[in-house]
Amino acid sequence: MLQPKAGYQNLKDSYLFFGISRKIEAYLNDYPGAHLYRMGIGDVSLPLCDAVIRALHQAVDDQASRDRFHGYMPECGAPFLREAIARFYQDRNIPVLADEVFVSSGASDELGDLLDLFEVSSTALIMEPAYPAYVDANIMAGRKIVYLTAGPENDFLPLPDDRLQADLIYICSPNNPTGAVCSRAHLQAWVDWANDRGAVIFFDAAYEAFVTEDLPRSIFEIPGAESCAIEICSLSKTAGFTGTRLGYTVIPRKLVRRGMNLREMWIRNRTTKTNGVSYILQRGGAAVFTPEGQEQIRRNIRIYQENARVMTEALARIGIRFWGGTNAPYIWMQCPDGIKSWPFFDLLLSRIQVIGTPGVGFGACGEGYFRLSSFGDPEDTKEAARRLVELLC
Amino acid sequence: MLQPKAGYQNLKDSYLFFGISRKIEAYLNDYPGAHLYRMGIGDVSLPLCDAVIRALHQAVDDQASRDRFHGYMPECGAPFLREAIARFYQDRNIPVLADEVFVSSGASDELGDLLDLFEVSSTALIMEPAYPAYVDANIMAGRKIVYLTAGPENDFLPLPDDRLQADLIYICSPNNPTGAVCSRAHLQAWVDWANDRGAVIFFDAAYEAFVTEDLPRSIFEIPGAESCAIEICSLSKTAGFTGTRLGYTVIPRKLVRRGMNLREMWIRNRTTKTNGVSYILQRGGAAVFTPEGQEQIRRNIRIYQENARVMTEALARIGIRFWGGTNAPYIWMQCPDGIKSWPFFDLLLSRIQVIGTPGVGFGACGEGYFRLSSFGDPEDTKEAARRLVELLC
Repeated sequence: MLQPKAGYQNLKDSYLFFGISRKIEAYLNDYPGAHLYRMGIGDVSLPLCDAVIRALHQAVDDQASRDRFHGYMPECGAPFLREAIARFYQDRNIPVLADEVFVSSGASDELGDLLDLFEVSSTALIMEPAYPAYVDANIMAGRKIVYLTAGPENDFLPLPDDRLQADLIYICSPNNPTGAVCSRAHLQAWVDWANDRGAVIFFDAAYEAFVTEDLPRSIFEIPGAESCAIEICSLSKTAGFTGTRLGYTVIPRKLVRRGMNLREMWIRNRTTKTNGVSYILQRGGAAVFTPEGQEQIRRNIRIYQENARVMTEALARIGIRFWGGTNAPYIWMQCPDGIKSWPFFDLLLSRIQVIGTPGVGFGACGEGYFRLSSFGDPEDTKEAARRLVELLC
Repeated sequence: MLQPKAGYQNLKDSYLFFGISRKIEAYLNDYPGAHLYRMGIGDVSLPLCDAVIRALHQAVDDQASRDRFHGYMPECGAPFLREAIARFYQDRNIPVLADEVFVSSGASDELGDLLDLFEVSSTALIMEPAYPAYVDANIMAGRKIVYLTAGPENDFLPLPDDRLQADLIYICSPNNPTGAVCSRAHLQAWVDWANDRGAVIFFDAAYEAFVTEDLPRSIFEIPGAESCAIEICSLSKTAGFTGTRLGYTVIPRKLVRRGMNLREMWIRNRTTKTNGVSYILQRGGAAVFTPEGQEQIRRNIRIYQENARVMTEALARIGIRFWGGTNAPYIWMQCPDGIKSWPFFDLLLSRIQVIGTPGVGFGACGEGYFRLSSFGDPEDTKEAARRLVELLC
């Protein structure tokens, strides 16, 4: 008889965001039509920018035209988009080649799929609090996970240590959920550690566009990363593609483990297990990397950054300790008066209709913390901040 | 040190379609600008139909609008599309429920991803000639494969046999590459075999829209399939979505192995490893299932069916033995005079500039056969048929 994968039986009860939506549903059932101030799940609220919309319409027209119609796309990405993304790196003096860029349907899809490259016997290292999918994807696969705990003592940025043993290192910077951002020295320590041990870093750069200060936006700014890192990025937060879907991954030519070239393995994986990403979406994505697209997405990002400023100002006024909110779209706050994460969620929902994300959903060490997102509507964000001050001051 | 998956080292040299494109490249290098008659890779040539184009444009406009903008989509598919697909089954008296339907980026993507549900210790059964990705995805995973050989002796439709031992059964009907179509009795034999042994059937229904006679288009027309089968389908050939990307998968609620419900496992897989399929593409896909969309896609399918008729008529005139071409978009021909598959490919390319697919690329038992596709341009197809007759008569 067929054997379903046993790892699924080791998954915990339910995915964080499912729990939140069930609570919201119950609340709206009791108070139909209530307005909620959504600072919870990291979904964007602003529409796609004009340059992207125009490119999408034009690509749809291509698919209606006998002469310009596109069938199967190259599995690793359309050359026009791989080249645009490579230039996006090269313009910042990061020597990424077009054939090291892989177009994906988004960072979460890719983070799951990339695990396909490694034996289950390899150990994953996850720094908690962490995006829950990192953990669940490895549990499903049946892979051993080593946890490294982040907290106020290291400003939510743990460093490697000589006793650690792991093969696959997840680093997310700017971090989800804590908003912490790694310095160059910090990333260098991880790169050196990985190169010494033959480990590989999964660098989740989904929030790189929110870095405004002189901090690394790509792991490939760090010497040595080209022999130990895979960078996974997405247009979800950069350009509002959460529901449109497009991402990219960089696997350097020099990334080799036990004689196997990971980039070549990934080409083989994609050509076998996919038929490429939609032509329409790739055209929309390419528009993000034009000067016009960059200027327009920056305008939206500035709106989200202003949201973050409004929220952090409110927290400062209340006197609550928090991390993130600068160089990052997430704010990680300590729940006041020692309240735990879920009771604080319930309190905000019932009393001021503000939705956030319970920190404990990102790992046990997130208990007593709470994540606020800056991707909400600006007016809602202002009102949520006002209500937080009123409730907690 | 990290251990890349060893299975990749067991893959054969190169993917079939890569080999073909390299030969085409070399030819075009020698004869720049030569016109080629492409009956090879199964890509479509007709643009998307009006109903789909209109829905895509409207969805792009939604993504430009503050009020109608869509962020993250439900990971298993938008309700509007899951319901439309369920109705598409129900209208044919096949009792598929909306929550048994999963929206995907396409059949090839899904066929790769679904393997995630099963332990590597489960054995796959592949009937050759077969779509090469079935084989390669299982080799990558490190799974044992049992082969069952199809040939003229069973009209390329092998039946199960009591000595067979396997857990995951791949059935593609209408078949790629042979164009053979399973009868109800044939599928019933496999369903009974799978239920008896606790095996699971992956039913690849990508070409169901080409069935015109009274033959099964879905495995769920067969009693008992709801406890042993997963159906994987795609709009690629049905509606010309090869470059636009959209597919769907049906996993019945009753599909349980060793106490684990596969549909619930797949929900957990999708919510962890994806963030759903593009809103824009799902709107485009939903238009396929409207009365207007159905009528328009049928018009295109009739053009491809006429291509198949032109090709089979030519083969009959030459006196070549072939399978498929009715109820199926592929024609599987015996190479004349005992020529092998790749030499026949080279002969057609060099002498009459017709591109087909060498049968041996679908498994050793495909040696001496050749696949022609009916998805080409109608004028090119007529000319290719004329040239074939001229060369081989």
